[in-house]
Amino acid sequence: MADPAFFTRACTLTLAEIVERLPAAVGAVLADQDDAHFVVEDVAPLSSAGPAELSFFDNRKYLGQFRTTRAGACVALPRFAKDAPAGCRLVLANDPYRAYALIAQAFYPQDPVVPGIDIRAVVDESARLGEGVRIDAGAWIGPGAQIGARTHIAANAVIGANVTIGRDCRIGALVSVSHARLGDRIILHPGVRIGQDGFGFAMGLPSHAKVPQLGRVIVQDDVEIGANSAIDRGAGPDTVVGEGSKIDNLVQIGHNVQIGRHCILSGQVAIGGSTVLGDFVAVGGNTGISNSVTIGTGAKVAGGSGVMRDIPAGAVHGGVPAKDIQEFMRDMAFLTRLRKARGGDL
Amino acid sequence: MADPAFFTRACTLTLAEIVERLPAAVGAVLADQDDAHFVVEDVAPLSSAGPAELSFFDNRKYLGQFRTTRAGACVALPRFAKDAPAGCRLVLANDPYRAYALIAQAFYPQDPVVPGIDIRAVVDESARLGEGVRIDAGAWIGPGAQIGARTHIAANAVIGANVTIGRDCRIGALVSVSHARLGDRIILHPGVRIGQDGFGFAMGLPSHAKVPQLGRVIVQDDVEIGANSAIDRGAGPDTVVGEGSKIDNLVQIGHNVQIGRHCILSGQVAIGGSTVLGDFVAVGGNTGISNSVTIGTGAKVAGGSGVMRDIPAGAVHGGVPAKDIQEFMRDMAFLTRLRKARGGDL
Amino acid sequence: MADPAFFTRACTLTLAEIVERLPAAVGAVLADQDDAHFVVEDVAPLSSAGPAELSFFDNRKYLGQFRTTRAGACVALPRFAKDAPAGCRLVLANDPYRAYALIAQAFYPQDPVVPGIDIRAVVDESARLGEGVRIDAGAWIGPGAQIGARTHIAANAVIGANVTIGRDCRIGALVSVSHARLGDRIILHPGVRIGQDGFGFAMGLPSHAKVPQLGRVIVQDDVEIGANSAIDRGAGPDTVVGEGSKIDNLVQIGHNVQIGRHCILSGQVAIGGSTVLGDFVAVGGNTGISNSVTIGTGAKVAGGSGVMRDIPAGAVHGGVPAKDIQEFMRDMAFLTRLRKARGGDL
Repeated sequence: MADPAFFTRACTLTLAEIVERLPAAVGAVLADQDDAHFVVEDVAPLSSAGPAELSFFDNRKYLGQFRTTRAGACVALPRFAKDAPAGCRLVLANDPYRAYALIAQAFYPQDPVVPGIDIRAVVDESARLGEGVRIDAGAWIGPGAQIGARTHIAANAVIGANVTIGRDCRIGALVSVSHARLGDRIILHPGVRIGQDGFGFAMGLPSHAKVPQLGRVIVQDDVEIGANSAIDRGAGPDTVVGEGSKIDNLVQIGHNVQIGRHCILSGQVAIGGSTVLGDFVAVGGNTGISNSVTIGTGAKVAGGSGVMRDIPAGAVHGGVPAKDIQEFMRDMAFLTRLRKARGGDL
Repeated sequence: MADPAFFTRACTLTLAEIVERLPAAVGAVLADQDDAHFVVEDVAPLSSAGPAELSFFDNRKYLGQFRTTRAGACVALPRFAKDAPAGCRLVLANDPYRAYALIAQAFYPQDPVVPGIDIRAVVDESARLGEGVRIDAGAWIGPGAQIGARTHIAANAVIGANVTIGRDCRIGALVSVSHARLGDRIILHPGVRIGQDGFGFAMGLPSHAKVPQLGRVIVQDDVEIGANSAIDRGAGPDTVVGEGSKIDNLVQIGHNVQIGRHCILSGQVAIGGSTVLGDFVAVGGNTGISNSVTIGTGAKVAGGSGVMRDIPAGAVHGGVPAKDIQEFMRDMAFLTRLRKARGGDL
Repeated sequence: MADPAFFTRACTLTLAEIVERLPAAVGAVLADQDDAHFVVEDVAPLSSAGPAELSFFDNRKYLGQFRTTRAGACVALPRFAKDAPAGCRLVLANDPYRAYALIAQAFYPQDPVVPGIDIRAVVDESARLGEGVRIDAGAWIGPGAQIGARTHIAANAVIGANVTIGRDCRIGALVSVSHARLGDRIILHPGVRIGQDGFGFAMGLPSHAKVPQLGRVIVQDDVEIGANSAIDRGAGPDTVVGEGSKIDNLVQIGHNVQIGRHCILSGQVAIGGSTVLGDFVAVGGNTGISNSVTIGTGAKVAGGSGVMRDIPAGAVHGGVPAKDIQEFMRDMAFLTRLRKARGGDL
């Protein structure tokens, strides 16, 4: 059970209600209609769920836990129905993890924003605040800024002059945003930095000359950005993060970068200036991508890689320098086998 | 000498007093009992220490500096006693660096916390503050939070609702903590982010579904966490940092990660979700570790590595992808030799 | 055109005025003196510049854009004069990007600092503020701190006791600085961390012993440091960033590091303790450099590298472990060719 000091369960639901709420695309059905009235009191991981709780199983690695779970109900793929222990009611679905995500959202919806402008917030008189906005103490809202309805600006965040932020956004504590236009339903976790100067210098003697950074950061709807990540504004064009993209903690995005829609960037990814990512690109943690390269739609990059060249749509690359991940792994394995076969001789 | 604008020396000590204060395990003895009453006025690096100062020598690389040091006293291994210059009194010890650390702590103890709640701090009336707590201006303490005795919350830090922080902690400026339980004597350097949502999404069309993150962050006693590092809360289980572990700056720790006791994570390490580190694991800077791998007790990982698989206890791995570090280095050296022997021909 | 919500153009200039303002070293001349009175209204990227705007061309990759640009004027190398389209007036220069940077600075100078101490800033009565200083709400200036003339401390930044900051600096929102001396004309972007403890421990049982960090951070004139970067103070010696060096976002610099003058460190570089960089060193993004190595003047390190050994002055290294970048690339290419030639056999 989630710690009630931090999480408030909104409801209990019967299995019938749960199946009914799920979108058709998830393909959820009860394995046994007799379970329709079973009351689920909470969600929980497979290993700790109890008889009144619902869990999910979607990774063979945890088959042992599934076979012995004490969960009262579980979402699983139809082909694993035979592995469920007695007493574990089944919701069959073609995407159990997505089904679980949506069910867990029903039990634990985002806390609603309680409107109010703390008297200790600093809000410029020319800023425009939508209905139901909440601004916590110590937040600083600059002249001309616009904050959309029901958006929450948490404590000590700093929103620069003329920045626009859409509706239903969650701007975390100690965030800074300048030179930016943000869409709706955006989540910025604490310490995010948006809109500062890009790293633009004409290098050389007698000293590097700073190039004024005259673009903005555009963040489209439904983007989420992790703690302490940084997105520089464009040098002339804008830096853009496309709709629905999810960015993890401590990610660096350089000026003029264009991130497509529904991309996934894991922790400590670094993307050099003017690089372009198509839609649905996924980049593993700690990977660096050079400036001015293009990553095609749906491409994946393994964690820990160093990308120096374009990657075609749909390809899966990895390694340093990055190439087709299978090729890279084969190269490294071949090298080891060759060295050992030779006993280190040439 | 340390800049008195920033550091206040607490005392002077004779060599006898120094040896007496050191724990037996360090095995400290004076090389010459006649030096017992020599007064050490300060500590300093080998290269700059003067006749009234004590330094240490524990790395052969600096043997030249040791032989010519002007230090009035020095901690060193017994086998290097013969290399000390005339006038440099010797404290012999089996771990000179640890001995030095403890001596330097005596000369420069942490400043005591001066109690007081700044009137410009924002402390919810339901928060509970222990005796001798200090809270600086602009800090924000949420409802139900508990702050242990003598803990210092620095300026503009944000402590979320119901968070608990133990005794004698130092919470740096501009830190944010939510959904977390922190033990005693913890140091969080400025800009640390603890407790925000883990990076949990059921990926796919039409858009990635956010998975509610229902766990916490548990930070055990005597942990230190570097500037701008981020630790996400668990998805269901907790994220845990074990007792005495030390985490450097700009480190990323994903949801559900379990860090054992007395681990060392250097700067810009990234650890993927649900990965488990045993006790006394050491990870070099800029290394990425995939999600859901296990690193055994006492294992070491070289800096700049990409870990994709489990590492057994006690092993030393490195490279991309990481493997036994000696094997990796041999592979790369063999490759170069082979290419050159062939003049690039196959 | 830059978004007027965020950027204010200071002037228009004729081509003659532009050439006149440029320093002799740039070697700027008009291709056609008849263009001297042409009025440039703004600067813009090659692809979007219109007939009243000036752009620049200095990278063959964009030759197509240059040939078809609608820009009224363009800075370019003399040898490309023949490629300019009709109607595009030419400023010829030996360093077009630097010329453009200086021209753009004329059109978009840094906003002047509007003096004033916000009543909601927390300024210790013993702090000393120069003429024309601006301190925004929520900023915290500790006892004994000194802030030079015309320096701007943005909202919620925290400046520790006895820190000195020079003239004409821009200290971004939510920055923290302690144990440091900063020169003139320094830019710290939001979330920078300067002066916290270095990562110094005498490791081992029963627990790692903290080594008091008794040095400072010295940042020389004209340094710029990117968002959320962290620079630890020295352990005994100081950590030093040399004049004119430019540091990107999310960079980690360990204790005792010495960065020379006019270095360039790209995003997410990590530099281990006591490492020394000469002048004009350039390090690509996401590269890690071990502790206690020396990188010679003018050396370059490719992005995504892992540096474990000294690099001689002027060398260009890369890869993991880093070596001469050409050698590394040849090694990796040879490996692939050899494996394929063998069909994976030994």
